Amino acid sequence: MKKEILYLKIAGIIEKQILNGTLRLGEKIPSIRTVQKVYNVSINTVRQAFLELESKSLIESVPKSGYFVSKASQRKFSLPSVIILDSLQKEKHPEDLFHKTFASSENTDITHFSLGLPEKTLLPIAKLNKSVAAVMRSLANGGVTYESVQGNLNFRRTVARWAFMLEGKITEDDVIATSGAMNGMFTCLMAVTKPGDKIAVESPAYFGILKMISAMGLEAVEIPSDPVTGLDLDALKKVLPTISACCFVVNFNNPMGTLMPDDNKKELVRMLTERDIPLIENDIFRNVYYGLERPKPCKAFDEAGIVMLVNSVSKTLAPGYRVGWIIPGKYKDKIIQQKLIQTISTPALYQETISHFLENGRYDHHLHTFRKTVHSNCLKLLQGIEDYFPDNTKVSQPAGGFMLWVELDKKIDTVQLFDIAIRQNISFAPGRMFTQYNQYNNCMRLNFAMNWNEKINADLKTLGQIVKDAY
Amino acid sequence: MKKEILYLKIAGIIEKQILNGTLRLGEKIPSIRTVQKVYNVSINTVRQAFLELESKSLIESVPKSGYFVSKASQRKFSLPSVIILDSLQKEKHPEDLFHKTFASSENTDITHFSLGLPEKTLLPIAKLNKSVAAVMRSLANGGVTYESVQGNLNFRRTVARWAFMLEGKITEDDVIATSGAMNGMFTCLMAVTKPGDKIAVESPAYFGILKMISAMGLEAVEIPSDPVTGLDLDALKKVLPTISACCFVVNFNNPMGTLMPDDNKKELVRMLTERDIPLIENDIFRNVYYGLERPKPCKAFDEAGIVMLVNSVSKTLAPGYRVGWIIPGKYKDKIIQQKLIQTISTPALYQETISHFLENGRYDHHLHTFRKTVHSNCLKLLQGIEDYFPDNTKVSQPAGGFMLWVELDKKIDTVQLFDIAIRQNISFAPGRMFTQYNQYNNCMRLNFAMNWNEKINADLKTLGQIVKDAY
Repeated sequence: MKKEILYLKIAGIIEKQILNGTLRLGEKIPSIRTVQKVYNVSINTVRQAFLELESKSLIESVPKSGYFVSKASQRKFSLPSVIILDSLQKEKHPEDLFHKTFASSENTDITHFSLGLPEKTLLPIAKLNKSVAAVMRSLANGGVTYESVQGNLNFRRTVARWAFMLEGKITEDDVIATSGAMNGMFTCLMAVTKPGDKIAVESPAYFGILKMISAMGLEAVEIPSDPVTGLDLDALKKVLPTISACCFVVNFNNPMGTLMPDDNKKELVRMLTERDIPLIENDIFRNVYYGLERPKPCKAFDEAGIVMLVNSVSKTLAPGYRVGWIIPGKYKDKIIQQKLIQTISTPALYQETISHFLENGRYDHHLHTFRKTVHSNCLKLLQGIEDYFPDNTKVSQPAGGFMLWVELDKKIDTVQLFDIAIRQNISFAPGRMFTQYNQYNNCMRLNFAMNWNEKINADLKTLGQIVKDAY
Repeated sequence: MKKEILYLKIAGIIEKQILNGTLRLGEKIPSIRTVQKVYNVSINTVRQAFLELESKSLIESVPKSGYFVSKASQRKFSLPSVIILDSLQKEKHPEDLFHKTFASSENTDITHFSLGLPEKTLLPIAKLNKSVAAVMRSLANGGVTYESVQGNLNFRRTVARWAFMLEGKITEDDVIATSGAMNGMFTCLMAVTKPGDKIAVESPAYFGILKMISAMGLEAVEIPSDPVTGLDLDALKKVLPTISACCFVVNFNNPMGTLMPDDNKKELVRMLTERDIPLIENDIFRNVYYGLERPKPCKAFDEAGIVMLVNSVSKTLAPGYRVGWIIPGKYKDKIIQQKLIQTISTPALYQETISHFLENGRYDHHLHTFRKTVHSNCLKLLQGIEDYFPDNTKVSQPAGGFMLWVELDKKIDTVQLFDIAIRQNISFAPGRMFTQYNQYNNCMRLNFAMNWNEKINADLKTLGQIVKDAY
């Protein structure tokens, strides 16, 4: 048998196993070495076979883990809908929705699909504690005296070195330490807006940013977002003349996990530069990519300095440290001024700790494991939804991060569903939280940064049954 | 000799020594036991003699240290003037004044009379490090996970127990953790004002609060302040109908160190309650009292919940920790909402550290030493000013805290003086920073929370000479 035919034959066998369900979505397929032995062929032949399957999107590689049956291979459910803004009336949230959703977030009996953070078992607590201890031995004045307004110098240097895809473009002078990313967003908005200004956000949008905009006396303008490519640039273009600033998450947006193509990022930055509209780019999920490489931020295409890149270690390392930073572009002075009046400085200890953690390669190592875990969880969750949820369910296709978006039948109200689910110790974030309009009532956001186990799978099945019962 | 005559005779001898300069301002007078031995009288007789001298304000007792020649005994200089607002035009600061004043604040060759913080040698760094280490051994999840929005529970409990003069009135539910007092002030202002609102402040006022008010799009209304009793309530009353909120420091105001009498505090709270105007009370200096007891805050007279008490450990323990708190009165929900959008939570570690430090009696012990040091420095500084500064100098009479206010001849411009002083490695805070009007140009604020020594005294002499040369 010719070599070409051989690899195609092997690919064909595996393809058949996938399509008839012998190998299921999210399952690991046999390793190259196993396949090699079974078919008594060369490793190169197996590699070619796997490349063939990958090119058909039937399998995907998870670095250092092997190959898995790809969700794209056999997607049963459609993608969620894109909103049509014209038909919507602005409306207040049900007052108690946030309280209801997060009131029980400390309760360990509950499976929290609702949260915006990783479960603590996925955080490298023991290693971080070691870094704290190491830093305490050398910290200037024990951290008792003020840190500089802009932030700890070691920390800023490390962040500049680690600002992936911006290599050579930034130095420690281009980094301002903040108390986490929310504080970064708040500080940027304080620096470039005044009450009454209109701020563009993706729709659906992270409820925290909607609350922030509203509490600051600003007005959020929701821009429709495609579940695969993200922000609808044409829709943005139409309202741009009225917009004072933008707050976008182009890489693995919360709640949908969408990834904006680079060309769109370029075009977005071009459009905003033309009108000198600042873009506050929330970059917190970029390190949690599932693909072969870390995507670029809009900041990578920003020549004019209109992009403020906001980041933190809250999504992958230590939410409680409240360590974040801004790469502020041309708004640096305004942002430092804001930081000065808001809090004077941020504590040195945790900045130095994160710096220590990064410099010692521990972050890289942790991210590697973290990405594998959440990607694998994502595939399991997608499979679970396909298995347990009604047939007309729509679900987003995260390219990174650890949240996805489920759209149910129009008649379903996920706020009511929440009340039923929480009684069974299952929580999720109702879609209504992610908009200021009376929409997404039939949607929910699910977090999958968990230590996945049989109980979670069983809870997912229960949740699917709750949904079905409501149909 | 009769006992009454005996004690008066001894008092008379000491009085003569004070008035002829044998015993000088700030000097310790011989101990009760020494005097007893020298005159071969009973301890009670000496005590009566000292009471006599104290009643004449010739001496004052410093708890656990003995008796010192009182500055009130022989005050040579007048108190600073009270502003007349009508004659003033609002005017921007010279742009570089803040930068100029604080650019060299890290330079250890300079004697920093300019700073708003204690010199680090006065901070209990080693003991705080021990508390950090103790806390790290038991901190939940190593502090990696979120603390509750309102703040660490142990911390809030300890603060409630330590909220002097408010005993029994507050619990942990009435405490909200912040990133220092500036962050507390900012959060309170965000919670109760909107851009364009008028905020009453004392004049002269701490420049940080003036900058904050301006950067938030608010308008500061400067209320004349008496150098002894503080805020002029009649002046406040006149503008009250236009005021949306007040930011006052009634106990040892920065920069003058004035102490508002309790009756005035009561009246102030009454006036504001009548109009439902919130008072943001900055309480950061209250623990640094020179008298026999800690004064009361306005909050102690607040029945309606209109007072937000803001505090921190930045002035006496650890500025770099950024640990502060608000006792929010009836604005609690609004303030928690603000904290949530600004930063979500504050790190647990330093809150627990401060709690540990307080609970173990270390703070009490530290405050005791700290108060003695700065009170003694205050007397030395006042003596130095009398010795070295021109005769028409006016100086405030701090009743606590560690800053005082010097008013020079009208023709002196302390901004120009600063340029001369800094070349001799002496810095101070020019008066122009403490107002938004073109006034206080002939004033300066001096910080005396230092490890006082001969060099400082020599620098004070040099500063006096610089002033005289400018006359």
